[in-house]
Amino acid sequence: MMINPVSERFSRQLEFIREIDKVKSIFRQTPLIDKTRKENDAEHSWHLATMAFLLAEYAPTGTDLLRVIKMVLIHDLVEIDAGDTYLFDEAAQHDKAEREQRAAERIFGILPEDTGTEVMDLWIEFEARDTDEARFAALMDRFQPFLHNISTEGISWLEHGVKRSQVIERMKPVVSRFPLFWEFLQINVDAAVEKGWLKPD
Amino acid sequence: MMINPVSERFSRQLEFIREIDKVKSIFRQTPLIDKTRKENDAEHSWHLATMAFLLAEYAPTGTDLLRVIKMVLIHDLVEIDAGDTYLFDEAAQHDKAEREQRAAERIFGILPEDTGTEVMDLWIEFEARDTDEARFAALMDRFQPFLHNISTEGISWLEHGVKRSQVIERMKPVVSRFPLFWEFLQINVDAAVEKGWLKPD
Repeated sequence: MMINPVSERFSRQLEFIREIDKVKSIFRQTPLIDKTRKENDAEHSWHLATMAFLLAEYAPTGTDLLRVIKMVLIHDLVEIDAGDTYLFDEAAQHDKAEREQRAAERIFGILPEDTGTEVMDLWIEFEARDTDEARFAALMDRFQPFLHNISTEGISWLEHGVKRSQVIERMKPVVSRFPLFWEFLQINVDAAVEKGWLKPD
Repeated sequence: MMINPVSERFSRQLEFIREIDKVKSIFRQTPLIDKTRKENDAEHSWHLATMAFLLAEYAPTGTDLLRVIKMVLIHDLVEIDAGDTYLFDEAAQHDKAEREQRAAERIFGILPEDTGTEVMDLWIEFEARDTDEARFAALMDRFQPFLHNISTEGISWLEHGVKRSQVIERMKPVVSRFPLFWEFLQINVDAAVEKGWLKPD
């Protein structure tokens, strides 16, 4: 690789931009809607950012949409080192926080210090889910794979033997704050059990 | 596919969100930085949005970053119908505008009217390149594949026999407004010719 960077600051920014290209090769459990393959973190993050824009009317009044979008754009960068952890893989959830913290320090540390700190703070805010912005970002992050699952006859749920109660338990803390999404989810979970896409309890 | 939509408005929003999943299967000429394959429109759009965030300091004072990011998130959706047109394919550039206009009408028409109009206006603004936001969005759209090309020994340039003057001509109207990027580009174009990745004129 050859890069003539013009300035030290620009050089670090470009190094980061090249580093994060790796999320295009980190594949998730969620299938594309046409079922041809699973999607990767870059595609997923683009979809969440676009959804946050299009569905912004459902966020609480005063929610800073730009901050929501920044969060979803960077929320999976830690997976460059930590890998993707499937939402319903309870064993892997165990040391996820620690693996991701180490990843965040290395990866965000590539950036100039001011921007690196901003990205780190956004990632911590996203993970903590204590602000309107983080809660709306988390809603997008839970809702998009759910939409893909019900649009693909639950192939990913079936592959992992996922049960109704697991979906409800993992979704409820995030989705139940948003009545329209929660209603949609409950109706479609029941229908998915009926179709045999989700195991009943 | 089974979707119980809860409301008519939500139903149109979800239909659009499912429709745009198709850009994950529209491949561009740009290789991933690890050269394993070419990237698709969703990955490209995610990269541009993240770059716009990280490089916002180089946009003119007063540039609305949220509008820039919205533009880059949606700028390639028309390719669902119109396909990707390679920047250096001069024949295909010919009827690109017309193909993409028809695509925009169908695709953005899926959304509720207010949001559909917002997305259409953003796309028109992006294409016209007459505002600070559109010019900065266009800079991202030109600069990211350039960065990939110089990071991958010009494999895509070599594949298409691209000449130095073609790169300069296609980049200049967009990139030369931004001195740091323009300087970086010129230095790296000269180096690419020297390495044999770009044809001299």
